[in-house]
Amino acid sequence: MVAEILSVGTELLLGNIVDTNAAFLSQELAGLGVSVFRETTVGDNHKRLFCALKNAFKSADVVIISGGLGPTQDDITKEVAAEYFGRGLVLHQESLERIKARFAARRRELPISTDRNAIIPEDSLVLPNDNGSAPGVVIEQDGKILILLPGPPNEMIPMFTNYVRPFLQQKSGKVFVSRTLKIIGIGESQVESMLMDLINVQTNPTIAPYAKIWDCHVRLTASAQSATEAEAFIAPLAAEIHKRLDPHIYSDNDATLPEIVVVLLQKQNCTLAIAESCTGGLIMSELVSVAGCSSVFLEGLCTYSNEAKTARLGVPAALIEKHGAVSAEVAAVMAEGVAKTAGATIGISTTGIAGPDGGTAEKPVGLVYAGLYINGEVETVKLNIIGSRNEVRLRAAHLVMDMLRRKLEVP
Amino acid sequence: MVAEILSVGTELLLGNIVDTNAAFLSQELAGLGVSVFRETTVGDNHKRLFCALKNAFKSADVVIISGGLGPTQDDITKEVAAEYFGRGLVLHQESLERIKARFAARRRELPISTDRNAIIPEDSLVLPNDNGSAPGVVIEQDGKILILLPGPPNEMIPMFTNYVRPFLQQKSGKVFVSRTLKIIGIGESQVESMLMDLINVQTNPTIAPYAKIWDCHVRLTASAQSATEAEAFIAPLAAEIHKRLDPHIYSDNDATLPEIVVVLLQKQNCTLAIAESCTGGLIMSELVSVAGCSSVFLEGLCTYSNEAKTARLGVPAALIEKHGAVSAEVAAVMAEGVAKTAGATIGISTTGIAGPDGGTAEKPVGLVYAGLYINGEVETVKLNIIGSRNEVRLRAAHLVMDMLRRKLEVP
Repeated sequence: MVAEILSVGTELLLGNIVDTNAAFLSQELAGLGVSVFRETTVGDNHKRLFCALKNAFKSADVVIISGGLGPTQDDITKEVAAEYFGRGLVLHQESLERIKARFAARRRELPISTDRNAIIPEDSLVLPNDNGSAPGVVIEQDGKILILLPGPPNEMIPMFTNYVRPFLQQKSGKVFVSRTLKIIGIGESQVESMLMDLINVQTNPTIAPYAKIWDCHVRLTASAQSATEAEAFIAPLAAEIHKRLDPHIYSDNDATLPEIVVVLLQKQNCTLAIAESCTGGLIMSELVSVAGCSSVFLEGLCTYSNEAKTARLGVPAALIEKHGAVSAEVAAVMAEGVAKTAGATIGISTTGIAGPDGGTAEKPVGLVYAGLYINGEVETVKLNIIGSRNEVRLRAAHLVMDMLRRKLEVP
Repeated sequence: MVAEILSVGTELLLGNIVDTNAAFLSQELAGLGVSVFRETTVGDNHKRLFCALKNAFKSADVVIISGGLGPTQDDITKEVAAEYFGRGLVLHQESLERIKARFAARRRELPISTDRNAIIPEDSLVLPNDNGSAPGVVIEQDGKILILLPGPPNEMIPMFTNYVRPFLQQKSGKVFVSRTLKIIGIGESQVESMLMDLINVQTNPTIAPYAKIWDCHVRLTASAQSATEAEAFIAPLAAEIHKRLDPHIYSDNDATLPEIVVVLLQKQNCTLAIAESCTGGLIMSELVSVAGCSSVFLEGLCTYSNEAKTARLGVPAALIEKHGAVSAEVAAVMAEGVAKTAGATIGISTTGIAGPDGGTAEKPVGLVYAGLYINGEVETVKLNIIGSRNEVRLRAAHLVMDMLRRKLEVP
């Protein structure tokens, strides 16, 4: 099955918003085994959308349009679809009631244009919008499928997930299941070379590595008659990759690194305190992004100045004088100092040179020392990170979180 | 002048990356007065790219392709462009030398495929790549212009800015200048209604408002024979908008809010300490993202637990007991406490309920108190923020930074 994605909206052509819908739909379609050969964006222009739709159906079995379903005169997608298939437009009473109920529940006045929002091409399948007004539409005719989805991602994504994905799965008669292994501590090229023999013979499941800013992902996708069967195809391959790449794999479900660290701390009844210098609040901010982190995270200090390192964490001024603030010795005392002064069982620390200035031949930009105080002992690592100021900070922050994960995961 | 944007890369069609290049180019072209009627994405496929290029030139005067300029067999953009215009491919010696020098400077081995990277269609204009290997290319033929740019945004954006923008400006005979006013503290709809009479009569300059997560932007764009003339068109309009929206406008050049705060602190010889609870390190992390912040930022504390608020900042346990950790009283003592214990002239604080849990009828999710200690006095504000956990944190963090900006900007 071949699909084409059409994004509709003059605001896209003006660059006012980035088209994340196309990327979401592409990824979903790839996961369903549907090939996408082209994506096209046009403005809110009847003639150009019609032309794009005609072009798309020249090679595609399925066309998915996102955007242009709203109630204003600019929103022309349903008109164009109806014209393309030679159908009229009718009021969909059920959608109208749904929209009215939605506004009533929020005690908001019904816009004058509501009727227009509930109009659909004749004889089409309606997809309810659980997060907004405009319903989605599916039209099947002459062996072609046209799917109309609303533009706002918070409406489009659940509509696709809840209604379109099962519909397409049924059409293809196959189920596609993906699992993503997330890897930190080794680069994409190293991951590829460690998996090269598996990548070279991949069929079902497929193996796709992707480099990210501070980690890399390997996505395994299998197709089968059922989700259980597809998962059974993935399991032995995932186990083999784990065998090769552990402990660099930090997640093989959708969990993020901070989520995993918070759960590990909770499981082991540990409490954490953080002292950050060059990462400047990034580690604590990532952990606080996890709901429920307050059960394990006591406090974080960004001791940016030398004075703060001394006053808050008890780092002796003489130690800083002797080794410099960016040193393994200072990182060690910071980690231990923050744990002890906070009354936490674990302390982690960073001190480094994020750049762009401040580097020397001996201590270049990207040099970061991390400290980990745990079980009454302190250890440090030295990192040499390449990148801009904020890449250095992001990479250091996540490598240090990962250092803690590895420590906590050891049985 | 009409342009079409082609994005090339199978990774785009698989949804592995979001196409931010198309949005950047669209915005830039709009700023240059060039109309974009369509954007198309195709994979690394010779036939489909050729077909897309042919289609594009049916209606466009200028086609910009990003992606597919690399050295691997997948990278086919230059071959397709050469074929389209009936030209051969030649080795561009200057680009080859540039690539060699680049690798030598980094002491990295030259890849075998380097020659392929320096090959260009005959008789084309070469755009130097200041941030990577693959050079850009401009081909002019039969009244059409084809521009090939590398895919990675960190290479594409400076190449467009430094070479393509002046080239297109020269072609159009006009200069377009934009200025963006950044606004915080009032929403997009309020901004629109305050500027509605100006928006209704806009011609040159144009006025375009955009909503962002925690602020909103108003972009003014003028076209003229010269940059000076265009700026002269913008100046009175910008002044009028300042008159209406100040002090909500925090920036009218490209400066970010943290950059502005750091500069204001430097100018006034102030030093800052921060105590964050619900924002959890976001404020300090934003400030530390600014190179040179160490001259004014002494330390930040994320006193997440009540114990930390008491031990580190001297917030009396009885005060927390009486008013709750999320209260104006606690925010006030936190701000004063962090400034005094850090030896800073200014202290700011946050305490709130970011959600999704922890809200009550009296203190709902989104309630945030901020404290500001300055000139020996402390004041607090109460914020009611709508959004997800991280939207609440982002909005609160920036509103608090802005509170400090307004204080420092007062003459």
